[in-house]
Amino acid sequence: MKKMWRRKIDPGLGEEFSSLNKRLLNKNGTFNIVKRGIEPRLYDIYQYLSNVSLERLALFILGFYLLINLVFGVLYLLCGVENLHGADPNLPPFLNAFFFSVQTFTTVGYGVLSPHGMAMNFIVTLESLLGWVGFAIITGVVFSRFSKPNVRILYSNNALITPVDGGHVLQFRLANKRNNMLMEMEAKVLLMVQDVTYERNYYHLKLEQASQHFFPLSWTIEHRIDKDSPLYNVTPAQLREQRAEVLVLIKGYDEAFGHHINSRFSYRYDELLWGARFKRAYDTDESGEVVFNLLKLHETEQVEGEPAT
Amino acid sequence: MKKMWRRKIDPGLGEEFSSLNKRLLNKNGTFNIVKRGIEPRLYDIYQYLSNVSLERLALFILGFYLLINLVFGVLYLLCGVENLHGADPNLPPFLNAFFFSVQTFTTVGYGVLSPHGMAMNFIVTLESLLGWVGFAIITGVVFSRFSKPNVRILYSNNALITPVDGGHVLQFRLANKRNNMLMEMEAKVLLMVQDVTYERNYYHLKLEQASQHFFPLSWTIEHRIDKDSPLYNVTPAQLREQRAEVLVLIKGYDEAFGHHINSRFSYRYDELLWGARFKRAYDTDESGEVVFNLLKLHETEQVEGEPAT
Amino acid sequence: MKKMWRRKIDPGLGEEFSSLNKRLLNKNGTFNIVKRGIEPRLYDIYQYLSNVSLERLALFILGFYLLINLVFGVLYLLCGVENLHGADPNLPPFLNAFFFSVQTFTTVGYGVLSPHGMAMNFIVTLESLLGWVGFAIITGVVFSRFSKPNVRILYSNNALITPVDGGHVLQFRLANKRNNMLMEMEAKVLLMVQDVTYERNYYHLKLEQASQHFFPLSWTIEHRIDKDSPLYNVTPAQLREQRAEVLVLIKGYDEAFGHHINSRFSYRYDELLWGARFKRAYDTDESGEVVFNLLKLHETEQVEGEPAT
Amino acid sequence: MKKMWRRKIDPGLGEEFSSLNKRLLNKNGTFNIVKRGIEPRLYDIYQYLSNVSLERLALFILGFYLLINLVFGVLYLLCGVENLHGADPNLPPFLNAFFFSVQTFTTVGYGVLSPHGMAMNFIVTLESLLGWVGFAIITGVVFSRFSKPNVRILYSNNALITPVDGGHVLQFRLANKRNNMLMEMEAKVLLMVQDVTYERNYYHLKLEQASQHFFPLSWTIEHRIDKDSPLYNVTPAQLREQRAEVLVLIKGYDEAFGHHINSRFSYRYDELLWGARFKRAYDTDESGEVVFNLLKLHETEQVEGEPAT
Repeated sequence: MKKMWRRKIDPGLGEEFSSLNKRLLNKNGTFNIVKRGIEPRLYDIYQYLSNVSLERLALFILGFYLLINLVFGVLYLLCGVENLHGADPNLPPFLNAFFFSVQTFTTVGYGVLSPHGMAMNFIVTLESLLGWVGFAIITGVVFSRFSKPNVRILYSNNALITPVDGGHVLQFRLANKRNNMLMEMEAKVLLMVQDVTYERNYYHLKLEQASQHFFPLSWTIEHRIDKDSPLYNVTPAQLREQRAEVLVLIKGYDEAFGHHINSRFSYRYDELLWGARFKRAYDTDESGEVVFNLLKLHETEQVEGEPAT
Repeated sequence: MKKMWRRKIDPGLGEEFSSLNKRLLNKNGTFNIVKRGIEPRLYDIYQYLSNVSLERLALFILGFYLLINLVFGVLYLLCGVENLHGADPNLPPFLNAFFFSVQTFTTVGYGVLSPHGMAMNFIVTLESLLGWVGFAIITGVVFSRFSKPNVRILYSNNALITPVDGGHVLQFRLANKRNNMLMEMEAKVLLMVQDVTYERNYYHLKLEQASQHFFPLSWTIEHRIDKDSPLYNVTPAQLREQRAEVLVLIKGYDEAFGHHINSRFSYRYDELLWGARFKRAYDTDESGEVVFNLLKLHETEQVEGEPAT
Repeated sequence: MKKMWRRKIDPGLGEEFSSLNKRLLNKNGTFNIVKRGIEPRLYDIYQYLSNVSLERLALFILGFYLLINLVFGVLYLLCGVENLHGADPNLPPFLNAFFFSVQTFTTVGYGVLSPHGMAMNFIVTLESLLGWVGFAIITGVVFSRFSKPNVRILYSNNALITPVDGGHVLQFRLANKRNNMLMEMEAKVLLMVQDVTYERNYYHLKLEQASQHFFPLSWTIEHRIDKDSPLYNVTPAQLREQRAEVLVLIKGYDEAFGHHINSRFSYRYDELLWGARFKRAYDTDESGEVVFNLLKLHETEQVEGEPAT
Repeated sequence: MKKMWRRKIDPGLGEEFSSLNKRLLNKNGTFNIVKRGIEPRLYDIYQYLSNVSLERLALFILGFYLLINLVFGVLYLLCGVENLHGADPNLPPFLNAFFFSVQTFTTVGYGVLSPHGMAMNFIVTLESLLGWVGFAIITGVVFSRFSKPNVRILYSNNALITPVDGGHVLQFRLANKRNNMLMEMEAKVLLMVQDVTYERNYYHLKLEQASQHFFPLSWTIEHRIDKDSPLYNVTPAQLREQRAEVLVLIKGYDEAFGHHINSRFSYRYDELLWGARFKRAYDTDESGEVVFNLLKLHETEQVEGEPAT
């Protein structure tokens, strides 16, 4: 609280820490911050299912399905085997009850296995309702997975310090990994450096072209390192010492789904290439078609007469 | 209408009342205003179901399911017991009809119980359509519950009047109770005071930092009580007399779902702590990870030499 | 095209017509414009179903359901009655086929009626797929009806020309007919008049308070008729002659669903009340609760000494 | 990289190519750019299904359904025919297994065909789960098709260079092909020309009215070709030589669904009509109703005394 009225830039990531070894922004766009004291809620399970990999979602559904049928299988057993008509005498009673539960929960209901007596029928009443509601939930999860913005931006592995016209630019490039139409892209770039007292400082880096209407090709984002730049006359060793990190914030609009999208990335001091430049990643083929190759996004070459990192 | 051309701030909450005992803004973000003359609509039932607690939704679905089966059970009875083939003679006829309805509505249809004759079959035709449509509605309700913005902001229990640099600030802090990524947070703070004629007046409180890009930690919102502030030289007793209330309006953006979110809160005169300050709520652990504890959000300490409330 | 470079306001509703008897904007917010040459598309059926009244939607679903079962009933008949096992000899063959279709389409499948032979089984294969897909479509329609913005704004029956401070204001008021939370309301008001050559002219009317943060009470929108107003010194007779129409455009934000909402309304020359003012529509009850009565929204009283319309 | 610090307009479509025969923007709004190196993902199949024609979607669903039943039909056969009770001896064993799979996957489950033994019942357990999940996916695809913005803008076939007041305007017009309410339309128009070194240059064309509140009629977008226009004193031959293309970007808001919508179009040098003007596309009928005919949108007439293209 000692410096109350200063107007420092803090994007909300905190300024004072007792030690810092880790990078601020992970490669997948999350922050290195752990939150304690959150009470779990059903909604969070739902959100978890909306975000896990498809493999895990499939496993979860399968596990839930088996569990439900196990539980109801046991319940049907407890009602007495004699109340489950049509049971196969060659199968153990539990398996008969389990398969009957499957046929009830999924509402297949062949009828070869059928419930008898009041208790059995009440459990059937409950389980078929559960099947109904469970299905509504799965439909919701499946749909919600697909109706969310799904953005996959590819960033070049390195940011470059490239000599241009006697000066230098900090530059990196990015491309849409998917074939959908992204529009109205905007970029914001921050430099984070940290002093000996573990205090973090954030600086905006001014960009040559901070927005772009369409995004079918790669987009090279450039910051000119002139006298107003916090990177002016800074050496690789200094950036290392300050554990510098370049934070990249991208916004845009997914036309097909009408979503606004966000993406984050960061380049740490050891991911900057000094004296390199990008190779062009697109060209025209014989038929006149413009071909852009995502795999070439990372390709750089050393500029002659420049010291490498 | 006497003061037509004045340009007073009214956020839409009214200015003239005959008496006011209650707080303006409840702790859950709703207003203390009752609306009369609303015609109920089916849509409102739907919206109600999208907003009630999960327990109530479950009860509602269960009740609706039992009711439907009760009604159709009676209808099947009216068609004559002899038209329900396969009925269990050990069960009362109504229960047979009820369980047949369950098997029809959920489309389990074992077939042990089966309809006979034209009337019975027409009711089956109707009920299975109803099951179909009812299921579509439940799916809609379930999905809509989860596709809506779900925001849970934790506000510090008190707003503080903290001495800083010889002056004072009004401050409070907030954090995201969930683990999702909120972005582009904006805050607006209003002071409402009320004079002896029960007229309400609203004032904007200027904030030190009214927006924040990310929100993984807590956010301390500060209003400097300088000469331009409506709180300048105001005493606790005066605020009590005027039934002062600080209204907090928060906006943001839920990245994963692409929703804009809103949150409201208020601090009444008796929820202000004079001469206190917040303790820091986050720190780094041994591994260098930043740990933020939600439970510490409310923690304050008295500033030495300052009078308490 | 004679007046190309003028900068007239046209909100997109056209300027030149050969005759005009009807109002420009209907009371439900649609325009009196008919579009020809639209090719119908399946998507439009879907959108129609998302917008019709619930009664019509129910009728449509019922009709569609009966039609499907009629068609498949006939198809099953064509396969030969002998291939429908378990048919009730007391019912006409078509009814047996119809009920079998119902049990297949809804996937109830009791099994008392069952298909036999290749043709029959292939039709069953088709119909149960259709039931599957049809159900997905109904679920989509139901959900889409509820996930769309649903805004019901109540406008006062009349706009008033009210004497204030020696001058006049044009005013009307509006309220949210539902109990949901609308926020960040904005209003735009246009005056449309039309001259003898059937050319329409549009004027913006400047508002005293063109936006409002919350909307739990009524909102009175006022335009001061000063020297800059197109209504300055205009008489009721002149407005009638010019077939004047006041167009009201409201925007806002539905907090619970995260939708932006729009509403339109218009007051024609014969819906203006001269010399009247609104009565207050809200008050506090004994418990201190603010009570707002929607039914009082239209209540006005004549101002003494002012000529009525 | 030779011209680093210039501030050229690039909407993100690239500037340097080795040859260019094709138009930049296709008539359906996509770009003539091919992206290589994209790894396919399940999500992309989903998005593909959300965008293909309805005929293809129907074919896909049918094919998927048949494939699933073929695979499970084979699996059931492998369990041994004797474990499929109730099989029709007049049908080949595979068909019995196939129809049993249909009845299981769609959960019709008549029960005439029924599983026997552990292996058979486990496959049934799996298939009915698959039917459940498959159905959730289809529901998601169907709903997502309809919940996406669906915008169909009709553009006039030609852009016109029309003589007005001694000068010229570039103009074209557009209309909403559907009956839904589009609002808050905005237009941006770029001119792309390309020099002998295959470098593309982009220019903004200033519009007379770049936005329009409503869109029930046609909207004529005009650019005045004055001294500041890049089209000033340019001849048809020059535009042909530079392979000029006028890029049109439209934004708006679909009121009913609360979506923001986008549309793109382009006019190439050979789609400009010199010396022509548009005929009016709307009029009032006898009842005073305004009638707008989409089919008249393209109608133009040559201006007297002007040279045609």
